[in-house]
Amino acid sequence: MAILTLTTDFGEGSHYVAQMKGAILSIDPGATIVDITHGVPPQDVRAGGAVVAAAAVRFPSDAIHVVVVDPGVGSTRAIVYVEMEIGRFVLPDNGLLTSLASGYPPLKIVAVENPEFWASQVSRTFHGRDIMAPVAARLGLGLDPDQLGPRRSGLVQIELREARRVGQTIEGEVVDVDSFGNLVTNITREMLAAAPRDESLAIRCDGHETFGLYETYSDQPEMTLLALIGSSDQLELAIVNDSAAAMLGVRAGAPVVVRW
Amino acid sequence: MAILTLTTDFGEGSHYVAQMKGAILSIDPGATIVDITHGVPPQDVRAGGAVVAAAAVRFPSDAIHVVVVDPGVGSTRAIVYVEMEIGRFVLPDNGLLTSLASGYPPLKIVAVENPEFWASQVSRTFHGRDIMAPVAARLGLGLDPDQLGPRRSGLVQIELREARRVGQTIEGEVVDVDSFGNLVTNITREMLAAAPRDESLAIRCDGHETFGLYETYSDQPEMTLLALIGSSDQLELAIVNDSAAAMLGVRAGAPVVVRW
Amino acid sequence: MAILTLTTDFGEGSHYVAQMKGAILSIDPGATIVDITHGVPPQDVRAGGAVVAAAAVRFPSDAIHVVVVDPGVGSTRAIVYVEMEIGRFVLPDNGLLTSLASGYPPLKIVAVENPEFWASQVSRTFHGRDIMAPVAARLGLGLDPDQLGPRRSGLVQIELREARRVGQTIEGEVVDVDSFGNLVTNITREMLAAAPRDESLAIRCDGHETFGLYETYSDQPEMTLLALIGSSDQLELAIVNDSAAAMLGVRAGAPVVVRW
Repeated sequence: MAILTLTTDFGEGSHYVAQMKGAILSIDPGATIVDITHGVPPQDVRAGGAVVAAAAVRFPSDAIHVVVVDPGVGSTRAIVYVEMEIGRFVLPDNGLLTSLASGYPPLKIVAVENPEFWASQVSRTFHGRDIMAPVAARLGLGLDPDQLGPRRSGLVQIELREARRVGQTIEGEVVDVDSFGNLVTNITREMLAAAPRDESLAIRCDGHETFGLYETYSDQPEMTLLALIGSSDQLELAIVNDSAAAMLGVRAGAPVVVRW
Repeated sequence: MAILTLTTDFGEGSHYVAQMKGAILSIDPGATIVDITHGVPPQDVRAGGAVVAAAAVRFPSDAIHVVVVDPGVGSTRAIVYVEMEIGRFVLPDNGLLTSLASGYPPLKIVAVENPEFWASQVSRTFHGRDIMAPVAARLGLGLDPDQLGPRRSGLVQIELREARRVGQTIEGEVVDVDSFGNLVTNITREMLAAAPRDESLAIRCDGHETFGLYETYSDQPEMTLLALIGSSDQLELAIVNDSAAAMLGVRAGAPVVVRW
Repeated sequence: MAILTLTTDFGEGSHYVAQMKGAILSIDPGATIVDITHGVPPQDVRAGGAVVAAAAVRFPSDAIHVVVVDPGVGSTRAIVYVEMEIGRFVLPDNGLLTSLASGYPPLKIVAVENPEFWASQVSRTFHGRDIMAPVAARLGLGLDPDQLGPRRSGLVQIELREARRVGQTIEGEVVDVDSFGNLVTNITREMLAAAPRDESLAIRCDGHETFGLYETYSDQPEMTLLALIGSSDQLELAIVNDSAAAMLGVRAGAPVVVRW
């Protein structure tokens, strides 16, 4: 039974998402469909790519991930099928896989051009429903991806906001705030490999500072600001049993500097 | 395997929705349950009907759609089973299908009156969980709808806010704002069949005006207001790469006039 | 086919929820996964327990309920498997089942300690994904719970905010506001068993008063405040066809006194 995931910027509870599910189930009534999120900020390709990178690796490697963050819908941007070691993707070729592809180079890229596998009528404004969903459903049923169109050799890349390390200083930023108000940064476990864990490590965010790297949220007393490496291997700033975002007034985009 | 969909006004993340799913899976553990939306404005039968009309047509025609927007729960309003060419429905008979039934006349209407197929205890305030969910689950397992109760000859109708065309003028309104801030109107592709596509067509909404009909959102420069026929065959107003609702300060209910 | 439910405080649309689903489907691709809610207020064990108590009883008794409201993640708090007549649970041992266990005493409690059934790498901050989800998936495939670790004899208890009855007076509070603005209280049908249903029963909430107990929302004229016993067998205050919460300015925590 095929597993398909959906990631969009349609908003939670959007009936446009349900229309995509209907399109899939009309082709493969046995498909298992999982929502990753529909709360990607509208047309934010970078944020959509970050979500897919965090979530897709957790799924079986034959899962098919449909991602509809598509500012160029109806224009000349291509729709592509991409195969990686960790999963398969159907999405607009607009940079959504830039981050993921740096760790998992695409094994196969196919341009989705053959209308035989699309809806019989294709809206110019909803390719998610009329092209990507039917194509993903058919791939789940065993369609050979090479039937979809010609091979491609590369994907559109976007510039990522990556943290930079210079000597014993790393400059990054807050890229996400989770439901607990924890501040997730773009500084990775890998970048911190050579850094000390003790109080000689200083982490500064938007005028607030904390020292040392902890293992989990309960390693410090209540109301203390602490830093740790979170479940996606990224540096996080948290206030024990409270919201760091609310207490510090910090939002996505705030600068984070680590020094040792 | 039966496909059942749920549409309610319980709010996204409501555990009342989960209670309905539990009731369904207790009868048919193999059912595929799809959420259409739970964000229908409380007790707004007209809005609930619009969502179902847009989404149900995208599903397999043997899917069973349960719709719980039910201001009269516990009163004398009937619960009905309705069969259409495009799908089957279990819902209160309060006008929810008025719009859909104008395109797809009901093939069979049955009053849901036989408590044999309901929960053993029926709450007076939650017929969605105790009557509609169990009935839908049993229909999915093959129950003959005529077992549910006596046939009915018609459904309750409500007055829809339809656009009106007089000569070369159509008067309608904004009926929905999507997650991108696009303004979806009740003016249909069909009503515009005789209208020109070029600049001689004027579309005015709440003091703002645009000319001509485009194919997709990227057909004009950034920040331009444009009109197009969207994925549900309804006239939409959009601002390229921004939110028309926020930029123009327009909400559902705003008047829209098309002239040529 | 195993039925697994998820209840968390991650927020609706959180991709952390999707990561848990990926972890489950990687072990059991055929699992049916149902969201109860992800809108539990952050780290609110009492609220999480109330939601699970209301929803779990509606599912098949072999369903496995994973509950991740886990302020002590990464600390010494245990993770437990709990078997009840009405269902099975995998959750932190932090009081989440206090309310449910008072009605359904645990039949079996096992400490989840054997890492053989966890993810190969366990994040210190996301046991929901790396311990609870894989364990639940394996239980759904038939794993003997006694393989998970040693038996336990009891669960951590928390103090519940229960209503108290003294003679002909019950003092409780509003514990939930639903999407319609109805005020759900912690006063149960059972506590009201000896109370009259007529106008000699007075219900007072935050300075507002109503008399008598009705059967359903439509039993009084529009805009009237009425009291009834809702679908979870708890006293509710509602305003017919409007939001009691908005009209009366009442929120969760407001005192409710019933007298006769």
